[in-house]
Amino acid sequence: MPARARSAVGATVSGPVLIIGAGLLGASVGLGLSLQGVPVWVRDISPTTEAVAADLGAGSSWAGLVRELGEEGARAEADPQLVVVATPPDVAGATAVQALRDFPRAVVLDIASVKAPILAEVLASGEDARRYIGTHPMAGRERSGPVAARAELFTSRPWVVCEHEEVAPEAVRLARGLGQDLGGIVTFLDPAEHDETVALISHVPQVMSSLLASRLRDTPLEALGLAGQGLRDTTRIAASAPGMWVQILAANAAPVVRTLYGVRADLDRLIGTLEDPTADGARLDIAQLMSEGNAGVARIPGKHGGSPKAFSELTVLVDDTPGQIARLLTEIGELGVNVEDVRMEHSPGQPVGMVEVAVNPTVHERLVQDLTTRGWRIAR
Amino acid sequence: MPARARSAVGATVSGPVLIIGAGLLGASVGLGLSLQGVPVWVRDISPTTEAVAADLGAGSSWAGLVRELGEEGARAEADPQLVVVATPPDVAGATAVQALRDFPRAVVLDIASVKAPILAEVLASGEDARRYIGTHPMAGRERSGPVAARAELFTSRPWVVCEHEEVAPEAVRLARGLGQDLGGIVTFLDPAEHDETVALISHVPQVMSSLLASRLRDTPLEALGLAGQGLRDTTRIAASAPGMWVQILAANAAPVVRTLYGVRADLDRLIGTLEDPTADGARLDIAQLMSEGNAGVARIPGKHGGSPKAFSELTVLVDDTPGQIARLLTEIGELGVNVEDVRMEHSPGQPVGMVEVAVNPTVHERLVQDLTTRGWRIAR
Repeated sequence: MPARARSAVGATVSGPVLIIGAGLLGASVGLGLSLQGVPVWVRDISPTTEAVAADLGAGSSWAGLVRELGEEGARAEADPQLVVVATPPDVAGATAVQALRDFPRAVVLDIASVKAPILAEVLASGEDARRYIGTHPMAGRERSGPVAARAELFTSRPWVVCEHEEVAPEAVRLARGLGQDLGGIVTFLDPAEHDETVALISHVPQVMSSLLASRLRDTPLEALGLAGQGLRDTTRIAASAPGMWVQILAANAAPVVRTLYGVRADLDRLIGTLEDPTADGARLDIAQLMSEGNAGVARIPGKHGGSPKAFSELTVLVDDTPGQIARLLTEIGELGVNVEDVRMEHSPGQPVGMVEVAVNPTVHERLVQDLTTRGWRIAR
Repeated sequence: MPARARSAVGATVSGPVLIIGAGLLGASVGLGLSLQGVPVWVRDISPTTEAVAADLGAGSSWAGLVRELGEEGARAEADPQLVVVATPPDVAGATAVQALRDFPRAVVLDIASVKAPILAEVLASGEDARRYIGTHPMAGRERSGPVAARAELFTSRPWVVCEHEEVAPEAVRLARGLGQDLGGIVTFLDPAEHDETVALISHVPQVMSSLLASRLRDTPLEALGLAGQGLRDTTRIAASAPGMWVQILAANAAPVVRTLYGVRADLDRLIGTLEDPTADGARLDIAQLMSEGNAGVARIPGKHGGSPKAFSELTVLVDDTPGQIARLLTEIGELGVNVEDVRMEHSPGQPVGMVEVAVNPTVHERLVQDLTTRGWRIAR
């Protein structure tokens, strides 16, 4: 049975809501709210983007209201409870300031992925900062634009709310409520703490993945044919769109660069070691770097908040034909074992596929035996 | 139906085979050959490791034969067709040289992950290099030791054979044949080319993952709770065992460091840019780095040898209960759609799980509609 649709009972945001910026995130907010019966207006600097978002059900077109009533009239008629600024990060601050000016009764929040610079711009503007609050829904895709929008985009994803000294309780209530209404998991961080955190868990990983993938530009294709899952995993996010990342990295440059100084120091040390790998202590240096990596990765929480080491993996060989993975997972379910993670391993030209299944370590050996008895081949 | 066991009909290696080093890889070679009826001896510097490998069916204990016949007698009695050196890389060269000396009729091959230094050691030894050849089965696991060994470890994985100027045809025949007999996909590279390739597709990705994960050592755990799939993918291999990687990186230091010079140049450029992100051209610099990453990752072949962009992804929400993923994949199979890749997205505290499914782009829209009709929620 598919997961139940979230009920709108007890929703916080009653609207009207004006969404400025109708791309992937803005249109997804609009879709989610509209499905719960909240009146939504969508506005975008691109008439086409705005029209597409409106056609998809993200809200009513702001331009249509302005054509009917003029800009002043439209503002008075809409009288939003909440303005959601969903523009690219480099204009989010200016857009929020303008929204505070245009809608003197509304709470204004933005959903950009960097928070301190936007707050600074609002505070410097002299507008009423009590009505402003920053949030960051940590959801998104490689694809962009309103066509990629989904009402469920924020479901079960972190929705970070960044309070500040001047913010009014009503703004905090709406920021948290919007996250909850859209199915997100609300977390509070102060803006600087948020920017440090995303530098480390999102922006620097993006940089490292791009730096690595960049090295592959001149590699012979035959060599890349030998690539395994390690290279695929480490370079996957290097496929992300440059345009968005230019804005994010530029906006969050200071925390990102602080972490990159640490990376550079470690890299310099490793390069020095590898330039003379037979020197005294060279192997110890390498071992230390690897161990530090072990220690870091062990701190990332797993699916249920535990360490990733809490699960035990087995690899099963399957024919590369439709339905094989389904049959395998069905049989594992019949054996009463919960699959904690599943991933396929790829290699070009494989006659058989390999499916990695992560399970509770206490059932690992029994599962290997039971699957083997049923005729499955366990690779390792 | 599970994949069929590989038939031994037409196998190249008839044996006897002596395997020196009974860890994960050596014992897996032994298991694979023994299952095909090839007589195998296993030898390890650790009596315990050797005994475990023998007990698991990887071959007969060499120490037992020596106890019976003495070292000289054992060599004469075994008279191996092929000696497989499966020791750690730092002693593989010396072990191969000694094996050429001890077994003057045998072909000696090693399966270490670095090739040029071992060949150099053999050539410098004055022993009969015609009977030596290097290979590299690109398979393995985080787990080590004979207990982790599997006869299927090499199935559908690249098995690289590194010819050299002096090698005899019989050595090449056995090296290729061993790879084929064990189900691997045989590829030929010269030793230097091999070492350059693995530096780029395996050793440098490991370094980058460890450098990144190392930055997480002092991060508050609450911050890491916001981590998404990007961080998990880029740091997964940072969990690898340091001991093995110290040897690999030290043995292949020159090609690794050449690639790291390129990484450092790009990193320095990016740090310079982010230190003054408002300078002229700064954004163009960032965009260029990101685009270079795009270009690199696009060259990695996908499951069927195509570009990773050849597939289209959709994300389905499922309840976090046993059997949900199996049911989803079963229904996708019923709809006649082949799943090209599947992965689960994790976030701590999620009431629902998200399953990413990669399919042929031509069936994407129909699948979204059909699954929605059947009551599944498509997230994006």
